[in-house]
Amino acid sequence: MRLPRIAYPLAWLMLVPVVLRASGETDRCANYREIAAQLRASGFGSMNAYALLDELTRRCGPRLSGSANADTAVAVTQAMMERLHLDRVWRERITVPRWVRGSVEKAVVLGSNNRPPTSLSVCALGGSIATPHGGITARVIEVHSFKELSVLGEAAIGKIVFFNRPMDPTLMDTFEAYGGAVEQRYSGALQGARVGAVAVLVRSMTLALDDVPHTGSMGYADTVKKIPAAALSTKGANLLSKMLKENPGLKVRLTLSAQTLPDVPSANVLGEIRGTEKPEEVIVVGGHLDSWDKGTGAHDDGSGCMQAIEVLSLFRKLGLRPKRTVRAVMFMNEENGMRGGKAYAIDPARGSENHIALIESDRGGFAPRGFTTDADSTVFERVRQWAPCFEALKAASFARGGSGADISPLASKGIPGFGLDVETQRYFDYHHSANDTIDKVNPRELELGAIVLALLCYVLAQEGV
Amino acid sequence: MRLPRIAYPLAWLMLVPVVLRASGETDRCANYREIAAQLRASGFGSMNAYALLDELTRRCGPRLSGSANADTAVAVTQAMMERLHLDRVWRERITVPRWVRGSVEKAVVLGSNNRPPTSLSVCALGGSIATPHGGITARVIEVHSFKELSVLGEAAIGKIVFFNRPMDPTLMDTFEAYGGAVEQRYSGALQGARVGAVAVLVRSMTLALDDVPHTGSMGYADTVKKIPAAALSTKGANLLSKMLKENPGLKVRLTLSAQTLPDVPSANVLGEIRGTEKPEEVIVVGGHLDSWDKGTGAHDDGSGCMQAIEVLSLFRKLGLRPKRTVRAVMFMNEENGMRGGKAYAIDPARGSENHIALIESDRGGFAPRGFTTDADSTVFERVRQWAPCFEALKAASFARGGSGADISPLASKGIPGFGLDVETQRYFDYHHSANDTIDKVNPRELELGAIVLALLCYVLAQEGV
Repeated sequence: MRLPRIAYPLAWLMLVPVVLRASGETDRCANYREIAAQLRASGFGSMNAYALLDELTRRCGPRLSGSANADTAVAVTQAMMERLHLDRVWRERITVPRWVRGSVEKAVVLGSNNRPPTSLSVCALGGSIATPHGGITARVIEVHSFKELSVLGEAAIGKIVFFNRPMDPTLMDTFEAYGGAVEQRYSGALQGARVGAVAVLVRSMTLALDDVPHTGSMGYADTVKKIPAAALSTKGANLLSKMLKENPGLKVRLTLSAQTLPDVPSANVLGEIRGTEKPEEVIVVGGHLDSWDKGTGAHDDGSGCMQAIEVLSLFRKLGLRPKRTVRAVMFMNEENGMRGGKAYAIDPARGSENHIALIESDRGGFAPRGFTTDADSTVFERVRQWAPCFEALKAASFARGGSGADISPLASKGIPGFGLDVETQRYFDYHHSANDTIDKVNPRELELGAIVLALLCYVLAQEGV
Repeated sequence: MRLPRIAYPLAWLMLVPVVLRASGETDRCANYREIAAQLRASGFGSMNAYALLDELTRRCGPRLSGSANADTAVAVTQAMMERLHLDRVWRERITVPRWVRGSVEKAVVLGSNNRPPTSLSVCALGGSIATPHGGITARVIEVHSFKELSVLGEAAIGKIVFFNRPMDPTLMDTFEAYGGAVEQRYSGALQGARVGAVAVLVRSMTLALDDVPHTGSMGYADTVKKIPAAALSTKGANLLSKMLKENPGLKVRLTLSAQTLPDVPSANVLGEIRGTEKPEEVIVVGGHLDSWDKGTGAHDDGSGCMQAIEVLSLFRKLGLRPKRTVRAVMFMNEENGMRGGKAYAIDPARGSENHIALIESDRGGFAPRGFTTDADSTVFERVRQWAPCFEALKAASFARGGSGADISPLASKGIPGFGLDVETQRYFDYHHSANDTIDKVNPRELELGAIVLALLCYVLAQEGV
């Protein structure tokens, strides 16, 4: 339709409101589209999250709870936030367990008449006791489930139980694959001891086939004998399985020198920008500061921590003044105790605060897809209305799902929890292993996660939930 | 509601159709949800695309058009498809340009009284002529646009023009950032020669800051003097820019030994599963077999080629019989001539065929997001109705956009074109450089792309467009 020239401006005036009202999403995101663009330009322009992660991993290295490196990480992240001139930066003191790997961890398939000994690539699982000084030498029995273990009867007595059920590679969701296999790591020693095993070897929790063992937490029970537990690389697991088929009587010598020392003091590290209108209403964005000791915890979870600090940095650079308080929290001790998350939830300081949302990034510094939300249906549907604001960042997926381990103690009290959802196909290649180093993190993917987190923090700070 | 026992089966019978009809998407994808799950399980279970890519990159290495390696790649991919016992595997002969890099490519900032010489990391741009044997030594003038160049006047005469406009890092779409900078690479020598330059150095087309130069095609015009052109690593570009600020009179010696040899014979490689009902209707899925010579073309575009073969492999393994013909095409010479794509479009064999869809994967072997579609609105809207079938594979984004260079000659005749849309934040870290090797490809992300391509091929083969 060609309008007469004189009517042209008038026609526009009539059309604009109609266009805007035709789509609720368009209206709703009008205030945030420009903010999203500013966050993107500032974040990608500086690539600051990666610079922070480089500083963290270089200065602290692996940061297992209770280690000197973890203490350094507390100081480093506090200093990072102090550089931002936030409204407040502080520590909340906690006590953490202290497990140390020790210098010896090895597994050898003993030689026989016609075979030389074969080394397997192993590492102690987090929390494992040591073997006796000279190691434990025993025959090996391979199983793929606790059910299979339970029907072995006396066959397991005196043996090293070898849990070799892989993560299911055919699943789309790698975290689901992890969830389907990780009981072997966490409870393998307990279940093995119940049937008389002397130690356990567990196939590493990874979808990659390589020679790098992946550690992670395991647990004992007071009523059951403690036996040593080690992770075996996936190539090592395949090799051992093959060797067992050829020679079921082969023996392995496992030697570990890990030990648990007394608890030590540590801290969560917090920094915040106070809300201009409702400062008592708090939005937490965080990750966990501790890491396993084999890599430098670049993805798990240096990424989440540095993204949380970058959220505040982006707010500062853009001069964004949130109506509600936005607080970055570096939780300590997620990996082997969750003391930080538990302590945060019950700290007396929480008494005067009203947390309205908890956001965690702990799935690696990969390209974001959106958020998983742990909230009741009403809140979920309300928050999901903001999803279109994230489309330009290709992170508009809002789905029901878990949020994060550290925020779960508070989320379980009914506070809406959000987990940054990312592209996770690569995550378990690195997770809990020497592979988890900064060269596996792409600066743009990491920064984009921080940008998306900043946008969610800002929307929630302005709109509430 | 608790139903009386006897009514229970009846109630189910009544409910089921209602549930199905409640959502058009549910109905539409009913036939394909199970296929998607089978493709996923089979693909992730075998990880065959990565095994194929390993074979291609190990046996062929870099595969620049006209090279012996490119000939090997033709033979290797033909053999890969012959192993699948397809209905037909064949070559279509073409002629390709042959440019060779030669053994010398270096740039040195000459020393002065108080400075030693400084080497810069460079490589010849594809198509560049050589310098004279002893190199070209000249002063350098830095510019950021052709407009800036055009107003230099006599200042460019006899100089090496240094194009140093970076890809815009603040953009979300890395391909858009590439598009905004790549004219410097393609036309820099032409524009430089027009103002009297003796050679050009071009900042590498990458968002990474490293010391690896990225090559790529450049062009001359018959009417303008040909001058040598080289890419400079981003670190080298930053260094040169800094040195120029300190010493605008510095001189660089550029030495290249590249040359263009006569055209040589080559081929596109094709394999297909014939349609059971409409075999004359053809769906093409492909990538380009040639690669630049600095890496092994793992992402660009070994990934796309191996995914196309994996599509047919998945069809075979699952016994899928498409109603229409599904054809994998390895196009030759995308990088520096597009001869394969052009020849395919006009080959006499096309006369008896009716192409209904053209699909290309040429954005790297990264996690898929969906497809960009180059088709008219009617076709686009019809195809987009299938998007929900891709949700379980997290690749349900169907957007208007370009499809692929190789299929564009045929797509420009009105045949719907589709490009596999992927997560592209990392792509230009590797693109056209020594970084583009298989260790940068994640096996699951690559396979997921093949799974998604296979699903689109199957849906289109059964439903038409």
